[in-house]
Amino acid sequence: MSNTRECLQLLQLVTNAELKESPVYVPMHPFEELNEQEVKHIDSGLSPSEQVQQAINCLPLPSEKIVNGLKPSFRRWTIMDYYKAYSSGEITPCMVAEQLVTAIRESSSPPMDMAFFINYDAEDILRQAKESTRRYGRGEPISALDGVPIAIKDEIDCSPYPTTGGTKWLHKFRSCKGDACCVMRLKSCGAVIIGKTNMHELGAGTSGINPHYGATRNPYNPGMISGGSSSGSAAVVAAGLCPVALGVDGGGSVRMPAALCGVVGFKPTFGRVPHSGVLPLNWTVGMVGVLAGTIEDAFIVYAAINGPLPSHETSAIPLPKVYFPLLQSTNSVSNVILARYGEWFSDCGDDIRTCCSQALHQLSEKFGWKTVDVTIPDIESMRLAHYLTIGSECTAALSSYLEKLDNAESGWDLRVALCVYGSFSGEEYIKAQKLRSRQMQFHRNIFTKADVIVTPTVGVTAYPIFDDALKTGELDYINGAALVRYQIAGNFLGLPAVSVPVGYDKNGLPIGLQFIGRPWSEPTLIHIAYAMQSLCVSKYRKPQVFYDLLKID
Amino acid sequence: MSNTRECLQLLQLVTNAELKESPVYVPMHPFEELNEQEVKHIDSGLSPSEQVQQAINCLPLPSEKIVNGLKPSFRRWTIMDYYKAYSSGEITPCMVAEQLVTAIRESSSPPMDMAFFINYDAEDILRQAKESTRRYGRGEPISALDGVPIAIKDEIDCSPYPTTGGTKWLHKFRSCKGDACCVMRLKSCGAVIIGKTNMHELGAGTSGINPHYGATRNPYNPGMISGGSSSGSAAVVAAGLCPVALGVDGGGSVRMPAALCGVVGFKPTFGRVPHSGVLPLNWTVGMVGVLAGTIEDAFIVYAAINGPLPSHETSAIPLPKVYFPLLQSTNSVSNVILARYGEWFSDCGDDIRTCCSQALHQLSEKFGWKTVDVTIPDIESMRLAHYLTIGSECTAALSSYLEKLDNAESGWDLRVALCVYGSFSGEEYIKAQKLRSRQMQFHRNIFTKADVIVTPTVGVTAYPIFDDALKTGELDYINGAALVRYQIAGNFLGLPAVSVPVGYDKNGLPIGLQFIGRPWSEPTLIHIAYAMQSLCVSKYRKPQVFYDLLKID
Repeated sequence: MSNTRECLQLLQLVTNAELKESPVYVPMHPFEELNEQEVKHIDSGLSPSEQVQQAINCLPLPSEKIVNGLKPSFRRWTIMDYYKAYSSGEITPCMVAEQLVTAIRESSSPPMDMAFFINYDAEDILRQAKESTRRYGRGEPISALDGVPIAIKDEIDCSPYPTTGGTKWLHKFRSCKGDACCVMRLKSCGAVIIGKTNMHELGAGTSGINPHYGATRNPYNPGMISGGSSSGSAAVVAAGLCPVALGVDGGGSVRMPAALCGVVGFKPTFGRVPHSGVLPLNWTVGMVGVLAGTIEDAFIVYAAINGPLPSHETSAIPLPKVYFPLLQSTNSVSNVILARYGEWFSDCGDDIRTCCSQALHQLSEKFGWKTVDVTIPDIESMRLAHYLTIGSECTAALSSYLEKLDNAESGWDLRVALCVYGSFSGEEYIKAQKLRSRQMQFHRNIFTKADVIVTPTVGVTAYPIFDDALKTGELDYINGAALVRYQIAGNFLGLPAVSVPVGYDKNGLPIGLQFIGRPWSEPTLIHIAYAMQSLCVSKYRKPQVFYDLLKID
Repeated sequence: MSNTRECLQLLQLVTNAELKESPVYVPMHPFEELNEQEVKHIDSGLSPSEQVQQAINCLPLPSEKIVNGLKPSFRRWTIMDYYKAYSSGEITPCMVAEQLVTAIRESSSPPMDMAFFINYDAEDILRQAKESTRRYGRGEPISALDGVPIAIKDEIDCSPYPTTGGTKWLHKFRSCKGDACCVMRLKSCGAVIIGKTNMHELGAGTSGINPHYGATRNPYNPGMISGGSSSGSAAVVAAGLCPVALGVDGGGSVRMPAALCGVVGFKPTFGRVPHSGVLPLNWTVGMVGVLAGTIEDAFIVYAAINGPLPSHETSAIPLPKVYFPLLQSTNSVSNVILARYGEWFSDCGDDIRTCCSQALHQLSEKFGWKTVDVTIPDIESMRLAHYLTIGSECTAALSSYLEKLDNAESGWDLRVALCVYGSFSGEEYIKAQKLRSRQMQFHRNIFTKADVIVTPTVGVTAYPIFDDALKTGELDYINGAALVRYQIAGNFLGLPAVSVPVGYDKNGLPIGLQFIGRPWSEPTLIHIAYAMQSLCVSKYRKPQVFYDLLKID
């Protein structure tokens, strides 16, 4: 929303809407057999480490990795690189952890001040690494994730850390009593949790500029934002501190920083990953997502964390079946139809338009996939309905704390957001859910014609961090709107979506392409992202800030 | 809410509540196998008439009907009475329809002015009866409901009538385009739909005093209210115009008038009966219910209308299984445990307390059932959370009409209600849903200790209709609160509930006892209601206004 007037005009779209639809309060889709190509059914009841092994069995063999004759121009270490290095005994988790602690300290201090983390505990990192090293020493690693460093957004509970949500106050009221379900699953696979990453205060913005813990700087150009709200999780992966990190995506918060930092951002279907232990800022739109250097690594971590809560039996919803994509051969997925909404390829920056159109063209050229043009009506009302939903849910979650809160403890942008958040009526909230119902119908129609919707992930590349924003936070609604423009369906409608790096703008800043899929179509999305990635690896560039923790080649 | 101050105090209970629960937006319970006693599994996919036959197979044989040596002192004609009379050829649906039309005309005109109906069409009634008579003539009735007169609350779409919702304006904006799913099912069984019954304007009150279509008068004493909002549906059954009628229960609107008019009121679990074609005034608390002279008849009509929508496949919720109670022997259900909340047996009228306690005592004496005392915390906040939910949902449903509406077209009570309805914030709406989640937990705990919760249905018996209320509607929050006090869990938590007539106050006005069951426990509820009824039939009295349509004995 660029200004108050536009904001009010938008609000009228919801307030005055005549909506015959019944409200959809929670975007939980019925499970449907999609009969996707090249997938493997995964038994229910497997442990996280068993699911990780199943995912690894689906990965391409090293010999198949270089498709289309393209060699990566730059690549980050992957989970399998760590696992192989550890398994060979060449390198131990302890060696990596020591380098890592040094790297975190360096990047967190002047002159770098990357503001990647809100909290990290060197001792805790080294302790975990030591245990992992012992397991490898005995020849008994738990899974391919054993000893692999993973960072967690500070919106997700993870002992021994408080959960600040990027604020100076939330953890004083709400103590973290253990690990979120997704963190517990990663730990049960042997992963080494390296700390809590920085984020936009309360996830209420998209820049990643946090007045309390610093503006997370973009590894491709530390003068630029990293995007948000999962700013730190995107930036640490981009900078090589870990192959994967967890974020939470309530309005593009995983995919936007992924695009801006040149990494993969993957948000599964609503309901795939338990939300338990995540700050309850928005129950019906936010979900855990994965930031990773490659789509394969995002897939492996998705395999570890997906699945129902142990307490799922109290839900009326049956478990959706789990399928994994068989990535052995990229040419195997054929006849993919991509839906392209023309306007979304014109209301973005020039470099983004060119780069994304090119990527789309390559897909059609190399794989014979077709693009169909579609229209998505009422996009602006959907954006507002989503905002109204987030706002009402966030205020309801925090109201008892907000009362006790001194305004001065929050940044300017959060103060403004909280004022707007609390201003919606019950009637408007429900109308927003009726719009959700209407948009689900629009999108169902699109998915009768196409397998995925393709969009630039964001409308602008990383923009500069101005000094005056550092202390107070920033209110940049123009850039904010350009960032969030293509994100909403993934959250409001609970659709799975992935952002893949596809190039750079003329200043060398990363550009991402987004694919939004049918409910439960994670395998197809991963296939498509893998195909896209295979066509782009030869363009990948090393960021200005990069740590080479394995130091092997 | 007795006055503004109490209302505001109550609102604080919700606004300032510290609620860690996740909101439950829709009270849809997971289906659970309850292993109830004396039940029969009903195959899915049966037609309404086949389900009716299944229900009839579950009824007691006539020889078993007089249990405990008690003979009915007064009884209304039942569905089976009609069916037998028609099948024997003694009486035809046409003969009944002609008497019926005369009776409706008489009761609708001065001096009686019972205000049972908002619309009825004599020709349409006679046409349906003629078709039914022909079917019986050919020896081919569709089901036991063939030719049976049934009335429909004017909140449910039913051709050839408009759906006024008790207003003078709603049907001008929203035309009725066909039959609601439940009406379609009744028609497919051959039932004769006799018209659209009167109701409290927009269901926004409990007295049944409608300034536009008249105050529905209580057949037991036409100077008294019939209760609401399904006032006409309760009163026509009480007056013998039909054995059953459909109502809609958003806050006790079926059970309250049932209790005040001395008939059975049955509200199934949320999700059992499709809501399609019912005015969308409150999506998450309102459901179709049945008013009937006996629990057996309520059961038969429940059998006809229950089941998923044909379009259920678009829902994430799996179909709950259907079981019917085997009523052949009342002694067969043993060891029932009834939960009694002490306060609810003290904050009601003296006659109600005495009569309901006696009924409870009889159950324990005759069947050996046990009563356990329980506490239901936060009842007042649940009542407000429910009100806030109804209010917000109703405003969201009607806002586009309300704008165009001249205030003068609504009664005083509706004008006030609409003002309050529109005053809640999105935050409060969501907090109400968090309270819903909390109350579900409280009730789940109670159902680990007991099979049903037992309460007086209402806190007062029918009170007088004052002349000054007739033109403008009435604002009686004291009596309103006493009526609605025990209703909320059935709606807000989606629990099944039934009201059974158990006696009369010293003025001869009916008293009802309510049983609230576990989700999906309709068979047990019907068993219990049947047992209760069998102990009370000897007390039943004939109303002052009564039409004996079969005139046989």
